[in-house]
This record gives sequence, structure tokens and C-alpha cells, in this order.
Amino acid sequence: MATAKIEILNGPNLNLLGQRQPEIYGHETLEDVGNACARLGQELGMQVRCRQSNHEGVLIDMIHDARGAAQGIIINPAAFTHTSVAILDALSAFEGPVIEVHISNIHKREAFRHHSYISARADALISGCGTQGYLLALQHMARLLG
Amino acid sequence: MATAKIEILNGPNLNLLGQRQPEIYGHETLEDVGNACARLGQELGMQVRCRQSNHEGVLIDMIHDARGAAQGIIINPAAFTHTSVAILDALSAFEGPVIEVHISNIHKREAFRHHSYISARADALISGCGTQGYLLALQHMARLLG
Amino acid sequence: MATAKIEILNGPNLNLLGQRQPEIYGHETLEDVGNACARLGQELGMQVRCRQSNHEGVLIDMIHDARGAAQGIIINPAAFTHTSVAILDALSAFEGPVIEVHISNIHKREAFRHHSYISARADALISGCGTQGYLLALQHMARLLG
Amino acid sequence: MATAKIEILNGPNLNLLGQRQPEIYGHETLEDVGNACARLGQELGMQVRCRQSNHEGVLIDMIHDARGAAQGIIINPAAFTHTSVAILDALSAFEGPVIEVHISNIHKREAFRHHSYISARADALISGCGTQGYLLALQHMARLLG
Amino acid sequence: MATAKIEILNGPNLNLLGQRQPEIYGHETLEDVGNACARLGQELGMQVRCRQSNHEGVLIDMIHDARGAAQGIIINPAAFTHTSVAILDALSAFEGPVIEVHISNIHKREAFRHHSYISARADALISGCGTQGYLLALQHMARLLG
Amino acid sequence: MATAKIEILNGPNLNLLGQRQPEIYGHETLEDVGNACARLGQELGMQVRCRQSNHEGVLIDMIHDARGAAQGIIINPAAFTHTSVAILDALSAFEGPVIEVHISNIHKREAFRHHSYISARADALISGCGTQGYLLALQHMARLLG
Amino acid sequence: MATAKIEILNGPNLNLLGQRQPEIYGHETLEDVGNACARLGQELGMQVRCRQSNHEGVLIDMIHDARGAAQGIIINPAAFTHTSVAILDALSAFEGPVIEVHISNIHKREAFRHHSYISARADALISGCGTQGYLLALQHMARLLG
Amino acid sequence: MATAKIEILNGPNLNLLGQRQPEIYGHETLEDVGNACARLGQELGMQVRCRQSNHEGVLIDMIHDARGAAQGIIINPAAFTHTSVAILDALSAFEGPVIEVHISNIHKREAFRHHSYISARADALISGCGTQGYLLALQHMARLLG
Amino acid sequence: MATAKIEILNGPNLNLLGQRQPEIYGHETLEDVGNACARLGQELGMQVRCRQSNHEGVLIDMIHDARGAAQGIIINPAAFTHTSVAILDALSAFEGPVIEVHISNIHKREAFRHHSYISARADALISGCGTQGYLLALQHMARLLG
Amino acid sequence: MATAKIEILNGPNLNLLGQRQPEIYGHETLEDVGNACARLGQELGMQVRCRQSNHEGVLIDMIHDARGAAQGIIINPAAFTHTSVAILDALSAFEGPVIEVHISNIHKREAFRHHSYISARADALISGCGTQGYLLALQHMARLLG
Amino acid sequence: MATAKIEILNGPNLNLLGQRQPEIYGHETLEDVGNACARLGQELGMQVRCRQSNHEGVLIDMIHDARGAAQGIIINPAAFTHTSVAILDALSAFEGPVIEVHISNIHKREAFRHHSYISARADALISGCGTQGYLLALQHMARLLG
Amino acid sequence: MATAKIEILNGPNLNLLGQRQPEIYGHETLEDVGNACARLGQELGMQVRCRQSNHEGVLIDMIHDARGAAQGIIINPAAFTHTSVAILDALSAFEGPVIEVHISNIHKREAFRHHSYISARADALISGCGTQGYLLALQHMARLLG
Repeated sequence: MATAKIEILNGPNLNLLGQRQPEIYGHETLEDVGNACARLGQELGMQVRCRQSNHEGVLIDMIHDARGAAQGIIINPAAFTHTSVAILDALSAFEGPVIEVHISNIHKREAFRHHSYISARADALISGCGTQGYLLALQHMARLLG
Repeated sequence: MATAKIEILNGPNLNLLGQRQPEIYGHETLEDVGNACARLGQELGMQVRCRQSNHEGVLIDMIHDARGAAQGIIINPAAFTHTSVAILDALSAFEGPVIEVHISNIHKREAFRHHSYISARADALISGCGTQGYLLALQHMARLLG
Repeated sequence: MATAKIEILNGPNLNLLGQRQPEIYGHETLEDVGNACARLGQELGMQVRCRQSNHEGVLIDMIHDARGAAQGIIINPAAFTHTSVAILDALSAFEGPVIEVHISNIHKREAFRHHSYISARADALISGCGTQGYLLALQHMARLLG
Repeated sequence: MATAKIEILNGPNLNLLGQRQPEIYGHETLEDVGNACARLGQELGMQVRCRQSNHEGVLIDMIHDARGAAQGIIINPAAFTHTSVAILDALSAFEGPVIEVHISNIHKREAFRHHSYISARADALISGCGTQGYLLALQHMARLLG
Repeated sequence: MATAKIEILNGPNLNLLGQRQPEIYGHETLEDVGNACARLGQELGMQVRCRQSNHEGVLIDMIHDARGAAQGIIINPAAFTHTSVAILDALSAFEGPVIEVHISNIHKREAFRHHSYISARADALISGCGTQGYLLALQHMARLLG
Repeated sequence: MATAKIEILNGPNLNLLGQRQPEIYGHETLEDVGNACARLGQELGMQVRCRQSNHEGVLIDMIHDARGAAQGIIINPAAFTHTSVAILDALSAFEGPVIEVHISNIHKREAFRHHSYISARADALISGCGTQGYLLALQHMARLLG
Repeated sequence: MATAKIEILNGPNLNLLGQRQPEIYGHETLEDVGNACARLGQELGMQVRCRQSNHEGVLIDMIHDARGAAQGIIINPAAFTHTSVAILDALSAFEGPVIEVHISNIHKREAFRHHSYISARADALISGCGTQGYLLALQHMARLLG
Repeated sequence: MATAKIEILNGPNLNLLGQRQPEIYGHETLEDVGNACARLGQELGMQVRCRQSNHEGVLIDMIHDARGAAQGIIINPAAFTHTSVAILDALSAFEGPVIEVHISNIHKREAFRHHSYISARADALISGCGTQGYLLALQHMARLLG
Repeated sequence: MATAKIEILNGPNLNLLGQRQPEIYGHETLEDVGNACARLGQELGMQVRCRQSNHEGVLIDMIHDARGAAQGIIINPAAFTHTSVAILDALSAFEGPVIEVHISNIHKREAFRHHSYISARADALISGCGTQGYLLALQHMARLLG
Repeated sequence: MATAKIEILNGPNLNLLGQRQPEIYGHETLEDVGNACARLGQELGMQVRCRQSNHEGVLIDMIHDARGAAQGIIINPAAFTHTSVAILDALSAFEGPVIEVHISNIHKREAFRHHSYISARADALISGCGTQGYLLALQHMARLLG
Repeated sequence: MATAKIEILNGPNLNLLGQRQPEIYGHETLEDVGNACARLGQELGMQVRCRQSNHEGVLIDMIHDARGAAQGIIINPAAFTHTSVAILDALSAFEGPVIEVHISNIHKREAFRHHSYISARADALISGCGTQGYLLALQHMARLLG
Repeated sequence: MATAKIEILNGPNLNLLGQRQPEIYGHETLEDVGNACARLGQELGMQVRCRQSNHEGVLIDMIHDARGAAQGIIINPAAFTHTSVAILDALSAFEGPVIEVHISNIHKREAFRHHSYISARADALISGCGTQGYLLALQHMARLLG
């Protein structure tokens, strides 16, 4: 079987990971996360790409590009979780499994962060496991595609 | 009288028209829709242009450019229907008539799709007529500008 | 194929069309609308009948009579849009397509006019196109039955 | 000046006035009320007619007939107060003053009786004055038309 | 003791019983139901009459006529269950027991069908027992009047 | 029988009556209203006193003083209608009838003016009859005390 | 065919039946109800067992035990009607018909008693027929299983 | 360092795992899940115990017993997720990390299942990963305690 | 240690205590309550002063005067409980403990009496113990200050 | 007169009193509270028993057992305050006075703790007085039973 | 041009400014603020008076006195911001510009402080600028009156 | 001390300032505002840059670039005020003070414009002062940084 391609997509402000509030979020950057995911992906026989954008439209374009090209999407929509019906619609046009990841537990934050448009589409949700959540998501993706 | 210019603007994910769920939405692409609209426009004495973007900001720019340049706007805001106050404000700065179009009947879908920010500005609404809705909107636009 | 029969049903107060606030609604009466619809129907190969009642029960009877006798219903439920579950149920017992028409854009009026019981059953909705909305609805009906 | 014509319209169940719970509502029937109103109307130079129906549609027809024929409407919509947008719309098509009357104080009854669609159109409201409320309404009508 | 008279009243669209969705509602018509009720009534020593109307006002008139003439009312208000304060008020003027019947379980349908104005007056409610519900209601009526 | 004493109490800003927006509210001042009420009171055999305060506490004191001293209270609570539970409680300690008066129809104004704490205690409500409302209230008071 | 086994399950506080407020609920105890149901069951060819618990967990265990062992469940969940998602889930795992019974009409009591989690699963609902409701439920159960 | 003890607690109806709807939930029983967790626990140096109860009170007792005895709790509260403040309070008295697990994605089910009292206390949430969710939770627990 | 000074403050309409509805509230006046509190205060080594006002502003002034002068406040805000953010703010500027007292149980009265602005500041709440509630509050105040 | 028997019932997690967060709740255990209540009971001529359970059903059983056996109930329902209609119903079947106690002020905690089902039945409420609240409740109970 | 007179009005508890929580609000008193405003007023050619009251009625009287006497009002309504329709009405009777000032940002405080009745009338709003907000308001007032 | 750098950021449609509705908003363009701000900045010892975008993502990038480069941000988020959690998050990652500016008073506009996500982060809010609001904000910024 051909190697599965997995897109890890990250929403607004996640480019600041590791720089902002390191006492809470740790010193790990999004690049570190991407590298760890790539390594684990290799072990699991998946080719992983990790990208980020602060632009809702760019994220939609990335999801469109994944149609017919990638087998699965892992997405941390960050603030767009709560406001973007457009990303929900884009994901609905993707054929493969979608896993939603949040680094912190969004249910412990302000009330407006408790609702996720994305969850209506996501096959699984991993929240509050820190950056390890991306690795756990990859493991689950491997099982779904296995 | 000079030929009226009409902008048909389309929101996120509509570039996938004809590719996604053809058993529901048919095999017609957005380009096909644009061509049909151009032909009908010609019959009705209107010059029609049909564009799409997944970017909220790009759609706002298009609406701004239409100020003083086009006589009417037909807009299918797709997912931005429910979330974009900014497009509502941009349309409010446009002087001519605005017609809102939805391909499917949004009142038959999830509850969060029942509310439209755009309807507060639109002069007319055509929903659930499939892609024929664009042609019906053009006919009404011709009457409004006639 | 036999000529399709289309019922155009109109709810309370629409018998005043053309008499009340002509500066807004124009001088066209419901009879004028009915005649225009009949002419267009003839062109499109459909036999159109246009009736009105201020009585919820009479409208329900009309819908029942259309079962097995007409191929499509175009309905402007007027104030019953917002209060009649009984008309919704009657329409649910009709086999053919149903198109909901409003002369003005109900989303621009008071909040209690934003909700429509009828939309849960209607196949398409045309709102705010003035009396032209009836003609646009007929065109879409022709396509649906074509 | 010609004698003003005043329509007093009464909604569902008011035909039972004087028969039901006389220990609360008294022994006066709707006919008694109509006669008292006619006498007071004569003193005030107004021709008063008092009618009742349990049918929403009949009440709408009566309001339509009053257009161009009567100078004022006094209405006790009874249970339709809380559910009929159609009567509100019919009253909005009437040119003269409208006074809403309730025999008991509806704000002291169940919560669903606290809201009135009719109040959005009524020029004045008299509630909880018993059947004397009709007579007070006539006095105010005389001043408005005086 | 004189034979008790029982009125079985049926609201809008129930005249279609047996014709619409027989795979769900069965092939039994309202006339069949009425006959079965008459037979059971005879066994239980009650004279049963079963009528239907799509007109809210006609149903109110029927309830008024039952005052002093019938000993009990069994009512399936259908869609008026959720919208008619006027029928509630008419039933409140009836002296005998009232039993509310629904053929299907309305709590399993859309949210707007979960609220019943009529239940505030009904002495008993039987819902979801199919057309057998009418017979069960008659049995309970016999006990109440026994 | 001794002459009945009636207190007419007026809430905040009503001291400006006749000075503010005379094109809407007329040129009649609160003193004029008081004089007209006194004259009508004399005809009806009632001794009427009309006072006003911008202070919630002063109005409560006035209501307390009326206990055992006056036979009825007519109150226009103005803005306190919507915010004062304390005036409601004070009126609940008064033994005689209470009539609530509003010069304009509060149901035609902003949403926060649609709710009245006072209506839960008032025996009758007269709203939107202009300053004539005070005179109609006196007439009804005469009947209640007669 | 083997005799059908029916479980009648009763929720908290129903062990007090016949002792509490006998002027309302009568002198019949839950044991009396159980005996009457057993007798009627025998006539209808069903073996009926009637049990009660104040413990949510015990009721869930009883429902689990009924899986594969009983053919139908009649349940009066009492106060758990309004709070127990767990009993709803347990009933969803039972294969046979479920009938919900309430002795009084819960829609006539406090607002928080109007919502039933159990109704989402129940095939039929009988409410407000007193203890006769259990017998009516058994009759309907016989028809469902017949 | 001593081996960490981990309690895996399961709420009502989870004892039916593997028996109910195996086409959805699979054939794995709760015992299988417990064994898999025990094996993974051993690899990660943790001693894992997996228990279940349909009784809210028993689950509270188990959580109390874990105080001072276990280092971490993984809990699938099932239906109690949505109704039990008492379990939330019990967990708040536990000193170590708490991870909430749901086998299916509760945000994709009925609205009343979207709210979790437990999430206010949980350090992490894993939802919709099937029974693998327990294993992912254990991995995250190992990192938290590492 | 110097004798602690305690202010007992009472809101609108409490000056009527003992005069209004003595069958419910008893014949004890606010002066009696004040005397009983003074006596108990002496036993507990506290100097107690009991005052009342119908004026929100006067109560605020009293609270301000207590700053730096009294060690504790016991307040029965009566109707201001539900409407006065200003008293809440004044209490927030007081340094010592605050105990809120209600003579009757406000949770058994109308819904708008269930919310208390004052509870957000109060250290303790005693409700429904009759006038004994003041004495219980003094006892708890003695412990807080002891 | 025979010595009155008083049941003090405590809900879930209160068995941890004195062990959890002693810097907030103090070092006093529920046993200490029970002993103090017993001593004060003896002084006041009442026999006091103090029990606790984490099981809703056990608490209901205890309340049932108190019927005809105890003269009053003091209950700290803890988390069941907010979720148990069943305990409310059980208390409604108890003939004597009921006093609700909360150690901390529940109005200063999360919003879902502001509503109490129990308050609808309780004769008095003492909240936020720490464990002294039990003693104050006993004093009030003595007066109610005196 | 004559010197403009400006009234600065302050609501309840602001007399405590500088005494309460100086680490947050600073040591500046309301008198200091008044003096600074007077000095800046002199520079800008305006005569400024700064007053405060804890009494809603007194503030209304002050606003009435300003009619025809002052050219502008700057008001910090403090807690009355959220509860006083009466002050809103008084301000609506004032002819000149009104600027609303809050020392802290009320949108960062409790939810019930987010709504302002006064903003519906105010021409401008300055919030969260500390006591400098009064000076900024004066500058804007100068421009409005310039 | 080095000169402070201040970013003034403007949201969607503000590029139209001065062109749209000049009778309301005046003829001043955003460039004019920028120049005025630059001049005032120079006086106050601050280097000011004023930019605008219709793209949410571009505004987020600008805020990110300001981290470590600018000392303060003044932002008029326009329509994004009400919909962008992403801009809120970006601002939360900025270390210096943030001032929110609105040209008109958003509390006087439609209800959906009353809520601001940005206010949860902003240190101060200036609304309804026209374009002078920017200058007032700069003054306050100077004090905050002084």
C-alpha cells in the first residue's frame, strides 16, 4: 500500500507557540511539533506535513488542496474553532478522517470557547493533552487508516 | 442608457461546485453558472461578471471595487452568510441593489444556518432554487434596474 | 404529458394587495398577479389557479383538495407563516413540490416575522422580489416538474 | 359632520359572557354590553355596532369591511390576543384609531397571556376594568375622533 | 341514569387519516375510528359522536355546543395543540372531563410539538398508542363518569 | 357615606409634563391634570389629590400614608414601572383598589418598557389614552367604590 | 407462543402510594396496583411483575436484567423522569416496547416537570389517568406484542 | 519511584459494552478494555484498575477511596457526565490528575449531551477515539506523572 | 477589646412590619425586633443599632457611615434585594462581614424574587426563619468577630 | 411533651469534611458537627441524629423513615441541591418542618450552584455560616416546634 | 459667546473615591477630580460644576435643573448605569450633549454591568481611562459645543 | 528614554472613511486621521503608524509584528469586533497596553454590535467620540506609557 499522506493544519496565533507564556505552554515551537510528528509518522508509515496560517481563507485553500491528495487531516483550528462555518464546510468536502486537536482544554476557558463548529465534522477530538495531543492524534489516525 | 454592470460574488467552498456531491448539487460548475449568467445578462442588456473567493477580505475588496463601477450585486455568501458582519458592512456601503442567493434551502439545514447577517441588507432573497436561483436573481435585477 | 396544474395560495390580508400602501406595494392587485401567473403558466405549459383566504381552515381545505389533483403548490402564507403548524402539516401531506413566496423581505421586518414554520416543508423560498416573486417561482416550478 | 361609525369586535369564547363563571364575570351578556355601548355611542354622537366570532378569519373579514366604512375599531381579541399575527396585520391596514380592551387584567393570569400581538398596533389599551372598559374606550374614541 | 354523551373532536388534517403514510399510520380512517368508538361506547353505556374540522373556529363552536349537552370531551387537537389558546379557553368553559389524545408520541417529534396548550385543561393525556388511544380514552372516560 | 379620598401618584420626570415635546404630549401640565381630576372627582363624589416625585422612596412613603387614609390609588409610575419591586410591595400593603395609568402606549416603545412590575398588583390598566386616561381611571374607580 | 413477561418498574417515592395525600391519590397502594396488573396480565396472557426502588442505580440494574428476559417494560420513573439520562440510556439498550406511565398529569405541575428524558425512548405515554393508567398500558402492551 | 496506581472508573450502562450495538461499538467488552489498559499500564510502569457501576453513589465512594491511594483517575462518566454535580465535587476532592474519556464524540449526539459537568475538573479530555481513547489517556497520564 | 458596633439595616416597606398581614408575619414590629437584637447584642458584647428606610439613597448613606465606625452589617434589603446594584457596591466598600437576612423564604415567592444582587457580597444568608433570623445572624456575627 | 426527634441529613462528599481544604473548611469533621448538634439538641430538649450518604436513594430512604418518626429535618443536600427532584419529592412527603443548610455561600460559587430544587420545599435556608449553620438551624427548629 | 456651563454628575458610591481600594483607583478624591475639571474647563472656556449623590431622585432633580441652564452634561451614573430607566428618561429631556464616563472598564466586570441604560441616550462614552476620562470628556464636550 | 512606537490598526471598511455618508462621518479620510495622530504623537514623544486592512489574517500578522517592536496598540476592529476570537487571541499575545476605539457608539446600533470580543483584552475603550477618539486614545496611551 502506498504511504498515507497526513496534513496537520494549524490556525491563527499558533505560529507563536513556544514564544508566548512558555511557563504554561512550554518552550516547544510549532516547528518542533512538526518534526516530532514527522518522526512518529515515519514509524507509523505515514508522510506528515505540518503547516500554519493566520488566514481563514488560506486554511480553506489548504483543505481543498488535500482533497484527493491526502488521506487524513489533523487540525488545530485555534480561535477559528468557535467562529468558522467556512472551515467546517471545507472539511465536509474532504473524504478522509479528520481529527480535531486543542493543546489546552478549551472547556476550562471562557464560555465562548466551549462551542466548536469543527466538532460537528471531526471524527475524533483530543483536547488538553498539550502538544502530545498531536502525537496521540497521529496514532489514532494510523488505526483509522490501518 | 449604458449597459448595466452586475457583479456575481461567491463565498467560500463554492469553487468546489460540481465536484462535491454531484448526486445532490449536479455536475454544473461555477464556471458553467457564470457562463449561463453572462448569456442571460446579454439578453437582458446587462454585463455580468462572476467571481469567487474563500477569503472574507478578498470579497470585501471586490464589494468596495464595485462601488461606483457596478450597478448591482448578486451574492451567494455561503458560510460567510452566518458569520460575517464585515461583508454586511461592505454591502451597506454599496449604492445599488443587492440580491442574496443560496443554492439549497438553508432553512432545512442545521439551526446555525438559519440566521443570515446579509439578509439585513439584501433587497431580495432567493433560496433553494438550485443554480437556477442565479438566473432568477438576474431577472429580478433587470426589473429593479429597468 | 398532461398539462400540470399549479395552485397559488395566498394567506390573510393579501386580498388588500394594491389597495393598501400602494407607494410601497404598488397598484397591482392579487387579481392582476393571478392573471400574470396564468399567462406565464400558459407559456410554460402549466395551468395556474390563484386563490386567497383569510381563514386558516379554508387554506388547509384548499391544500387537501390539491392532493392528487395538482402537481405543485406556490404559497404566500402571509401572517400564517409565523403561527400555523396546521398549514405546515397540511403541506406535508401534499406529494408535489412546494415553493414559499413573500412579497417583502420578512427578515427586514419585526423579529417575530423572521421564523417560518412553512420553510421546514418548502422546497424553495423566494422573498423580497415583490410580486415578481410569483413569476420567478413559476419558472422554478416548471424546471422542477420538467 | 357625519356620525362616526364604530365597530366593536369580540374574539373567541366571548359569546359565553354572562353564562360562564357569573360569580366572577357577572351576569351581563355580550348583548347587554352591546346595548350599553349603543346608548353611550348615541350620547357621544357615534353609531356603534358590536359583533363577535370564534373564527379568526371572520374577524379579519370584519376588519377589512371596516376599511373606508368605519372611523374607529374597539377590539377585545380574547385568546387571539396572544397568537394572531394575522389580526395584527388586518388592523394595520385599517386607517382609523384602534383601542384594545380586556375585561380582566391579563397581566394577572398565566404567563402566556402577558404578551399581546395586538398592542403593537393599538393606540390605547384598557385592561381589567370589567365590561365598563368598553364604555371607557368609547369615551376615549370620542375624544380621538372629536 | 341517562346514557352519557361523549364528543370526540379532531383537529386539522386528521380527515386524511388512513390516506397519508399508511405504512406509519395504518389504513384505518377517521370514520373507522369513529365506528369503533361508537361500538365500544355502546358496550360502556355511552353515546359517542366523532367529528373533525380543519377550522379552529368550528372546533370552538363544537365545544360550546357540548356545554350542557355532552358529559365528556375527547379531543385530538392535532396541530392546534401547539398554537391555540382559544381552544384551551373554550375547553375551560366546558364542565365535564376532557381527555387529550395524540396518535403518535408528540414528544418524539420536532421541539415545537412538545408544548401543548391543551394539557393545561385536560384531565388526562394519552399519547403514542396509535388509534387505540381513542379506545383507551373512552375506557378512562367511563370510569370518570361511572 | 363619607366622601372617598383618592390619591393620584406620579413617578419620575412627570413634573416636566407640558414642557417637554409639547408637539407630542400637548401643553397640558401635571397641575392641569390634577385640576381636571379634582373637578371630575367632585362630580363623582370623590376627593382627589394629585402629587409627583422623582424619588422612589418618597412615592413609597406616599403609598404608606394612604393606608387607612385613602380609599383608592391611581398611579402612573413612569420609569419606575419597569424597575421598582419596592413600589409593587408598597402597593401590596394598600387595602383598596389600584389603577395603573400610562399616558402613552408603553407597548409601542422600547422592549424594556414592555414589562411592568406594577401590573402584578394593579386591578386595572389604562394605557395610551393620553391625559384623558386619568379621567377614565377615576370613572372606573367610582364604579369600584360605588 | 410462550407467555410474555412484563416488568412494571416504579421510581422514587412511589412506595408511599396510598399513604400520602389519599384525598388526591386515593387509598390504593403500589401493592394493590401490582395485584390488579397481575390479574389483568393473566387475562391477557402476560406474566407481570411490579417492583419499585428509590435508587437510580437499582432501576438501571432491573432494566439490564430485563434484557433477553422480559418482552416489555412499563415504567413510572417518577422524579427520575426529569433528571436521569442514565435510565434513558438503559432503556435504549432494551429491545422490546417501553410504555411510560404517570399517575397525575405532569404537564399540570411545575415547569421543571414538563420535560421527560424518558419520552425520547418510550413508545407510548399515558399520563393523568390515575392508577388506571397502568391497566391501560398493559392493554396497549398486549396489542403491541400480540 | 513507587509504581503509580491508576483508577479507571466507568459510569452507568458501560457494563453492556460489547453486547449492545456491536456494529457500532465493536465486540470489545469492558473487561477487554481493562485488560488492554493493564498491559499498557505495566509497560508504562503504572498499576491500573478498571471498575464500573450503575450507581452514582458507588462511583463517589470509589473516588473517595482513591484519595491518598491512587495517583490518577481516568473516568468515563457516561450518562452522569451531564447530570452529576456530586461526581464533580468528589473529583474535586481528589489530588491527582483526572482525564475524562468518552468513547463516542458526545458533541455529535443530542444537545443535552454536549454539556459536561466533569470537564470543569478534568485536566484533559479525549472524546471520539473509541476504546483506544482509554489507551491514549493512559499515555497522557504517564507524561503527567512522569 | 472595645465593644463591636453592629448596624442592622432594613429596606423598603419593613416599617410596616407587624401592621400588615399579622396572621402571616405576626404582631412583632420592627421596633420590637430592634429591642430584641439590642438585648442579645448586649449579652454577646456587641452594641446594636437597628434602622430602616424606604429610600435606596438613605440606605447607601447609612452603609457609608458604617465604614470605619461599625464592625459588621446585618441587612434585610427587602425589595432592593432584587434591583439595587448600588447597595451591592456600597456594601463592597465596607470592610467588615455582611449578613443578609430575609424574614420569609424568598425562593418560595415569585420568580423575580429568586435573584439577589446582595448575595454576591454577603458572607452569609439566613432566609425564612422569621424575625428570629435577625437573632441568628447576630450569633453568627459574634462568632465571625470573636 | 415527648422529646422531639430531629434528623440531620448530609449529602454527597460531606463525609470528607475536615479532611479536604482544612484552610477553608476548618478541621472540624462531620462527626464533630454531629456531636455539637447532639449537645445543643439536649439543651433545647431535642434528640438529634446526624447521618450522611453519597447515595441519593439512601437519602430518600432516610427521609421516608423519618415520616411519623421524626418531628423535623435539617438537610445539607450538597451537590444534590442542584440536581435531585427525587429528594424534593421525598421531602414533600414529610409532614414536619425542613431547614436547608449550606456551609459555604452557594451564591458565591459557580452559576449552576445558584439554583436549589430543595428551596421550593424548605421552610428556612441558612447558607454561608460555616458549620455553625447547623446550630443556628437547630435553634430555629426549636422555635418552630416549641 | 457666553461661557458654556457644564454639569458633571456622579452617581452612588463615588463620594468614596480615593478612600476605597487606592491601590486600584488611586488616591485622587472626587473633589480633586472636580478641581482638575474646573481648571481644564477654564482653559477651554467652560464653567464646570461637579456634584455627586447616592439618591437616584436627587440626580434626576439635578438633570431637570440643568434644562435651560447648562449646555452639556457629563455623567458617571455608577451603579445606576445598569438599573435606572428614570435617569435615562430625565437625560432624554435635556437638550444638549451628554457624555457617559466610567472610571474602570465596565465590560471587564460582572455580566450585569455590561448593559447600560444610559448609553441609549449618551452622545459619547469614555470608559476605562481612569479619572482622566473626565478630562477627555471635557475636551470632547468643548469640540461638540465649539 | 527611547521614543515609544504606537501601532494604530483599523479593521474592514474603514478605508472608505470620508467617502461614505460624509454628512454623518464628515469628510475626513483615514489618511487625515493618520496624519493628525502622527502630529499629536510627535508632541507626546511617540512615533505613530496608522494602517488598515479588510483581511482578518493581515490584521493578526500586524499584531504579531508589533510584539517586541511597538509599545502600544490602538485598534478600531470595526466589524471584526463582534466576530473575531482570533484577533482577541493575537492581542492577548501582545505585551503592551491595548486601547479599543469605535468612531460611533456601538451601543446605539443593532444588538449584534453590542458585544465585543476585543473588550475582554482592551485596557480602555473609547467609543462615540468620532475621529477625535483616536486622539483621546493617544493621550491616554501617553499616560499609560509615561
